[in-house]
Amino acid sequence: MPKQVDHEQRRGQIAEALLRLTAREGLEAVSLRHVATEAGVSMGAVQHYFKTKDEMLLYALQYQDDVREQRITASLASAGDSPAPREILRACLVEIIPTDDRSTSEWLVGVAYFIRALASPSMAEVYTENLPKLFEFFADQIRRAQSSGEVSPERNPHREAEILWALADAQGTSILLGQRTPAEAVALLDYHLDRLFEA
Amino acid sequence: MPKQVDHEQRRGQIAEALLRLTAREGLEAVSLRHVATEAGVSMGAVQHYFKTKDEMLLYALQYQDDVREQRITASLASAGDSPAPREILRACLVEIIPTDDRSTSEWLVGVAYFIRALASPSMAEVYTENLPKLFEFFADQIRRAQSSGEVSPERNPHREAEILWALADAQGTSILLGQRTPAEAVALLDYHLDRLFEA
Repeated sequence: MPKQVDHEQRRGQIAEALLRLTAREGLEAVSLRHVATEAGVSMGAVQHYFKTKDEMLLYALQYQDDVREQRITASLASAGDSPAPREILRACLVEIIPTDDRSTSEWLVGVAYFIRALASPSMAEVYTENLPKLFEFFADQIRRAQSSGEVSPERNPHREAEILWALADAQGTSILLGQRTPAEAVALLDYHLDRLFEA
Repeated sequence: MPKQVDHEQRRGQIAEALLRLTAREGLEAVSLRHVATEAGVSMGAVQHYFKTKDEMLLYALQYQDDVREQRITASLASAGDSPAPREILRACLVEIIPTDDRSTSEWLVGVAYFIRALASPSMAEVYTENLPKLFEFFADQIRRAQSSGEVSPERNPHREAEILWALADAQGTSILLGQRTPAEAVALLDYHLDRLFEA
């Protein structure tokens, strides 16, 4: 079904244009006209794929999450057959931290969506709906590490998952304001993982 | 010198108006006219105290930090003569978390300044200049706790200070988006302090 693939490619192309625009100028800059220009397609084409602006915004956010997930999966696959819990956690957390142009851009998109979510309950819902799943995935890794004796059984997997997320999530502010280098942020994360993984 | 006091009061009144406006509508809403109206003073009065918009913005941010610090000092003083390191850390960290209208408003002001700091190096400098002092203060508390045997000597005081800050700093997003209650955020902080304070 080559036609179906084309549609998905076109939607992805529009999502990428929207994300570039958002990282550069914030979500206020996202209009039908700007997205079409940035994507190099007609306004009619954008309207064909997305009925409303919100639909387009939500698709783009999901698109960014999916691409990031594929990147993590690929990086773990290249690291070997069955990555250890600590490797998996670290790979996910490092992806959240703005360490290069791509992740900085993604981080800025996250901030822009967050600002919009503050004023829009439906956006807040979508923005946050993936987090509980991520926390549960992190908690599962910690439970696995507890069964193999790498993490103390006294640690609460869910709370540790939330702390890991918070630690990675908070690094962006410091990095973007030039207070801390990406390498320093990753070193802080490694320090924390060292403490967690000492049973 | 009662006149001096009046000047400081008037500057404080203007700063409070600016902060209310920022929390409600973001820094884009901060104009000379709006601040004067919100403060109930003339535009000339605002111009008398602040030569430029940036001067006014920076004064207001410093004002908010000072008021918060006074609040923490007062809350610790009411708790007893010589508060323990853990109490001091907890008092500071809980103040960062948006738990009521006042701290939510302060947190939103912080976000608004951060967004501006992303585009303005001079604002970024001011925005971040207090943080190293705060980290050092936190690290001092951890060192004190290490000398009294409450925290393991193997912990790195400065890194632990940065982790504590990150943990508290990241709670605002989850709370504002309705993902976590303030009480849950404080419970997560207490869980983390329990782990840190087990020598």
